[in-house]
Amino acid sequence: MAGSSFGKRFVVTTFGESHGGAVGVVVDGCPAGHAFSHDAITAQLQRRRPGQSRLTSSRAEADAVEVLSGVDPTTGKTLGTPIAMTVGNKDTKSHHYQELAKLYRPSHADYTYDAKFGVRFVAGGGRASARETVGRVAAGALAEDLLATAGVQIVAWVDSVADVHAGAIDRETLTREAVDATPVRCPDLEAAAKMEACIEAARKDGDTVGGVIRCVARAVPLGLGEPVFDKLTADLAHAMMSLPATRGFEIGEGFAATRMRGTAHNDPFEPDPERTHGGDGIRTRTNHSGGVQGGISNGETIVFAVAFKPVATVFVPQDTVDRDGNPAIYKARGRHDPCVLPRAVPMVEAMAALTLCDHWLRHASSRLEDLHR
Amino acid sequence: MAGSSFGKRFVVTTFGESHGGAVGVVVDGCPAGHAFSHDAITAQLQRRRPGQSRLTSSRAEADAVEVLSGVDPTTGKTLGTPIAMTVGNKDTKSHHYQELAKLYRPSHADYTYDAKFGVRFVAGGGRASARETVGRVAAGALAEDLLATAGVQIVAWVDSVADVHAGAIDRETLTREAVDATPVRCPDLEAAAKMEACIEAARKDGDTVGGVIRCVARAVPLGLGEPVFDKLTADLAHAMMSLPATRGFEIGEGFAATRMRGTAHNDPFEPDPERTHGGDGIRTRTNHSGGVQGGISNGETIVFAVAFKPVATVFVPQDTVDRDGNPAIYKARGRHDPCVLPRAVPMVEAMAALTLCDHWLRHASSRLEDLHR
Amino acid sequence: MAGSSFGKRFVVTTFGESHGGAVGVVVDGCPAGHAFSHDAITAQLQRRRPGQSRLTSSRAEADAVEVLSGVDPTTGKTLGTPIAMTVGNKDTKSHHYQELAKLYRPSHADYTYDAKFGVRFVAGGGRASARETVGRVAAGALAEDLLATAGVQIVAWVDSVADVHAGAIDRETLTREAVDATPVRCPDLEAAAKMEACIEAARKDGDTVGGVIRCVARAVPLGLGEPVFDKLTADLAHAMMSLPATRGFEIGEGFAATRMRGTAHNDPFEPDPERTHGGDGIRTRTNHSGGVQGGISNGETIVFAVAFKPVATVFVPQDTVDRDGNPAIYKARGRHDPCVLPRAVPMVEAMAALTLCDHWLRHASSRLEDLHR
Amino acid sequence: MAGSSFGKRFVVTTFGESHGGAVGVVVDGCPAGHAFSHDAITAQLQRRRPGQSRLTSSRAEADAVEVLSGVDPTTGKTLGTPIAMTVGNKDTKSHHYQELAKLYRPSHADYTYDAKFGVRFVAGGGRASARETVGRVAAGALAEDLLATAGVQIVAWVDSVADVHAGAIDRETLTREAVDATPVRCPDLEAAAKMEACIEAARKDGDTVGGVIRCVARAVPLGLGEPVFDKLTADLAHAMMSLPATRGFEIGEGFAATRMRGTAHNDPFEPDPERTHGGDGIRTRTNHSGGVQGGISNGETIVFAVAFKPVATVFVPQDTVDRDGNPAIYKARGRHDPCVLPRAVPMVEAMAALTLCDHWLRHASSRLEDLHR
Repeated sequence: MAGSSFGKRFVVTTFGESHGGAVGVVVDGCPAGHAFSHDAITAQLQRRRPGQSRLTSSRAEADAVEVLSGVDPTTGKTLGTPIAMTVGNKDTKSHHYQELAKLYRPSHADYTYDAKFGVRFVAGGGRASARETVGRVAAGALAEDLLATAGVQIVAWVDSVADVHAGAIDRETLTREAVDATPVRCPDLEAAAKMEACIEAARKDGDTVGGVIRCVARAVPLGLGEPVFDKLTADLAHAMMSLPATRGFEIGEGFAATRMRGTAHNDPFEPDPERTHGGDGIRTRTNHSGGVQGGISNGETIVFAVAFKPVATVFVPQDTVDRDGNPAIYKARGRHDPCVLPRAVPMVEAMAALTLCDHWLRHASSRLEDLHR
Repeated sequence: MAGSSFGKRFVVTTFGESHGGAVGVVVDGCPAGHAFSHDAITAQLQRRRPGQSRLTSSRAEADAVEVLSGVDPTTGKTLGTPIAMTVGNKDTKSHHYQELAKLYRPSHADYTYDAKFGVRFVAGGGRASARETVGRVAAGALAEDLLATAGVQIVAWVDSVADVHAGAIDRETLTREAVDATPVRCPDLEAAAKMEACIEAARKDGDTVGGVIRCVARAVPLGLGEPVFDKLTADLAHAMMSLPATRGFEIGEGFAATRMRGTAHNDPFEPDPERTHGGDGIRTRTNHSGGVQGGISNGETIVFAVAFKPVATVFVPQDTVDRDGNPAIYKARGRHDPCVLPRAVPMVEAMAALTLCDHWLRHASSRLEDLHR
Repeated sequence: MAGSSFGKRFVVTTFGESHGGAVGVVVDGCPAGHAFSHDAITAQLQRRRPGQSRLTSSRAEADAVEVLSGVDPTTGKTLGTPIAMTVGNKDTKSHHYQELAKLYRPSHADYTYDAKFGVRFVAGGGRASARETVGRVAAGALAEDLLATAGVQIVAWVDSVADVHAGAIDRETLTREAVDATPVRCPDLEAAAKMEACIEAARKDGDTVGGVIRCVARAVPLGLGEPVFDKLTADLAHAMMSLPATRGFEIGEGFAATRMRGTAHNDPFEPDPERTHGGDGIRTRTNHSGGVQGGISNGETIVFAVAFKPVATVFVPQDTVDRDGNPAIYKARGRHDPCVLPRAVPMVEAMAALTLCDHWLRHASSRLEDLHR
Repeated sequence: MAGSSFGKRFVVTTFGESHGGAVGVVVDGCPAGHAFSHDAITAQLQRRRPGQSRLTSSRAEADAVEVLSGVDPTTGKTLGTPIAMTVGNKDTKSHHYQELAKLYRPSHADYTYDAKFGVRFVAGGGRASARETVGRVAAGALAEDLLATAGVQIVAWVDSVADVHAGAIDRETLTREAVDATPVRCPDLEAAAKMEACIEAARKDGDTVGGVIRCVARAVPLGLGEPVFDKLTADLAHAMMSLPATRGFEIGEGFAATRMRGTAHNDPFEPDPERTHGGDGIRTRTNHSGGVQGGISNGETIVFAVAFKPVATVFVPQDTVDRDGNPAIYKARGRHDPCVLPRAVPMVEAMAALTLCDHWLRHASSRLEDLHR
């Protein structure tokens, strides 16, 4: 019932404060017999890592993951037992934060953590830091690797930064390489250049910007999602809105669907003899539903979007109060991204993978006939 | 791990198919000693009930709730044991649905339920029907009643229908009575009239429309929300996206926040000697965050919005396939709302109450000092 | 996190007070496509029902179960959605209990419910009544019916009453019919007669007796149990110790194993070409382990025992206190079994079935290869 | 839903194989503001550690715990966030186990892990090793330390080894120091000497013995336990039966209660003005119930016992089969305790503390009035 676990069958529990001993994750419920790929995890951690470009924070962490358990040293296969992974915290300039012990930074979690717990880890934002997502990304990369054995592909990209929107993206063919072609992780190169300029402009003003990440999951098995509360839509929303700085989630047409009529929004079914992954020769002509109907995957590409607010740490003085409620002025220092979007791409992919993998495993016992195979 | 439960300490489990024996809910974890109000539950069920106006489905259900357990007959107090509530299904014109046994209605859950379970309850949409929300609304009314003992107020309203948007609403004073003043449940009377016309126009075309419901929760205790996966934002998103026909969720400025700079979006703290419910004399000057920072309530009014797609049942012929994958034409019959929004208002309130009540109870053991009081 | 649910994938939630509106259960996570057998449930409810013989309480309840949801009316198959079942309370002579509102009956739950909740349902013991097990037995019969499709057989019997012990029982061939041949449900007819006399003697003295129920589960699939906390042994113990009046649990040799040396207790493996249900041609020569090793089923017959204390309601005056802590005398009235054992047999079977069924479903996603079948 | 977590509000997740990188635990849900005691944890880990006397395995592990997260470095207080603790594996003589890759050791978990997962960590027994309990003991020491702030005292001891039973122990005054006065951890010195001789005799024969550990928890708050499935009895049984080598659990009079009449077993209530921890001036004259009635703590001392089988590793040749099902002979080598009991004492205490602490936290939201304090 505590809040640091996600998933019901593929259960991840993250731990760690930004400037504590380590951050990490325990994955319980990973199926046995999977060829564990250290490289797959490292690859996503590298994409999440700060210091990749001038767009991101300059904190220098190698972010090398240590696998403590759950993998058979002889065969390299997962054992079916918990997989614990840790990443040490090294480049922690905690003195930057000492002045913050008594101030509440606006729109950060300082005040609410204090209000809830009566104590907080001041340095680096403690648990309320993007560094907490290291565990998610490590576990998500494992989940993605498992899903890949069933053909699933997950790709996210930066779809907008502030007012700059990417043009049409081919959701069926987009690759992670195309996304990584620009530092801003927008596969529309023209938009990417504008986004980068937009971020730079904000940085020069000591200000920050937000944006939208869109994500597709292709070849997702039919039938994932558990009515009525654990609909795939609901669990994806939960997953995404648990990421730092998120403010909105939509699937398929999302909020735009509210401005469509039913005749325009409905997805007619049609025969499709070539459709193989669902195996049933049926597909929808359009995909306004974004791959989920009635909370259950329908075999079409899942498409969703996540809204990220502008980063709270700005480099202009702001009004605030101290812990005693007295007025104060806060002026940020240290290393901070002017825009979280590029680094959030692997976080969104990780949470998508964790959600889908959990539902894939949960679905295994949905039918009596499947239990007798 | 099955999907029909919501909450971790205030746990609701709903059951029932639209045209089965009954729909209902079991609430486990309700604190003992609460004066159970049958009227509070009936009131919200009446607001959810079909047949209230020409805008909604004409199915005639009294929706009288029967309380089977969990309440002391002598004192009327909750016992701390599970509270089971059922509502019978009576006006079930199942013959309307018999032709549907072999057809998949576009953008309904017929296909995905079949794909998942290999069997489905055809009549009335079975479990994938808005009727399933009876249990949610009954339990939500109980949760709301519990929260009211702490001063919490929850009010939702229809903020847009198709392209018609409500004007500015005073979120601090809006009442449920003002919402119910129009059949469309929009407190902006001018907009309400336009929304009604919009719905009527769609109905005449045999078509349907969607829209956005916005909801506020006022005087929510400080400190609700469990980092990092059960942030209040994440659980609210989960709750809302589990409702039928939902396509999007946003909190505070939501997607609009992605177009704001940090300096504009941040909420400065300021002293507020009059603030009593949080008891700490601190508040934020603005509330772009929508009452949640770092996933934890900050004592400001919680504001969020939910996007509902246009109803899938349209009265024009649609292309589809039958269960064998052969092309077919589907032409809807029966009783169906052209717009789900007015009736969804109490559903949104119910899910908000369930989420907040669960977190209120979970929060009770967050600090060692609280365990020693 | 509330306490009225059991299981993680096959999740049962019971509700109801002894003299309230109804008792019942919701089963969430039942696989779809199972031919639901109303008769199987009725049969076990009849075995649990009071008033079957002079050995049991004379309360007259038909205990007819009503199935509210989760079963397809057309095919009779389970839908994969929650199955709600209720049984009404009719013969409730609540006036017997009115005097008890202010007294604490020794070794009942009156005092502890008051201490925990500050309120209790006085009549009939409220939730702390054997009547609560109606929901367990109904759900357990469904679970048993599902397990039967995999060949599993569960049989429990009364192994001792007070000092009277049954002789050797053939655990591989014992049938439920043999158990039901005597009212005391002991298949050793000679011991059964003595047990019956023992119970009668206690009744004449206004006293009560306890005893041990032993249970076997045959042909349980290999591999059930989830290390390290949800070992099959641990979950069986949890299940059994949640039944009213239980005081002990043991598996295999149980406490007697503490007096054996390792060389005597170990079960040597040997080839067994005929062994088919596990499919691997291996078995153990002896079964001191009782079918579970390392917390996981090994394909041998599971054997465990449950200790039930003597019924707390005795018909001689007892010292106690009232709610204010003043000394008082309690003299029981009403209908009460002098020995709970015979009726507890189907309760033990039910909890065994719920535990095994839950683990059977959980096991479905234990190996990656199984997810690709 | 995976099996490596225990508890619902104070949730511990253990990880690690005996000869893997590390063993450890994540505690999620620990209340904030507790002065974290590294020493308390070290003390119990030292009691669990092998190599303490000639009675236990000679594996030399320092078992120094590293705390990775969840504690504020400035104040030493718990943060309310997950506390991750690891202990490295160093003295792992894995070559002893290489021959075991193809053999199934009788009454070990080799066969069942293979049957379940299709793969197993051969060296050291992998996850099915007593070394897995390091995480439990570390988390249990933390839980015990939290409970101590409410006055709770937990003491376990070896009550029997094979046929040697301890005499009467004063359950209200027994200290951990008295328990540790002998290597066998039995506070009855005469019995302790006999137990030691009994263990030595078995060792000389290459054989092993089992026994019973009894445990008391004093000054447990009134009202802990969640009817009906999470009764305190049920969760304690679950906790204990999840420990390696356990075969039975009993509370209060346990199996002996089955041979008592109700008039002898019932615990009369009486006024007790001096009783302070429950605060209500009521106690029971006797304590046959072992501190739990109706599944809820009644303020009396909780007393329970756990049966441990003789260690499976014996040093005489045993019949078995290899992975292909062919007959084979297994002859143990390496370091193994002839009796697990002395080292299991802190394991039993740890699981008791975890269970009670979880229920203490869960209880905090049982009454509406408590939520308004």
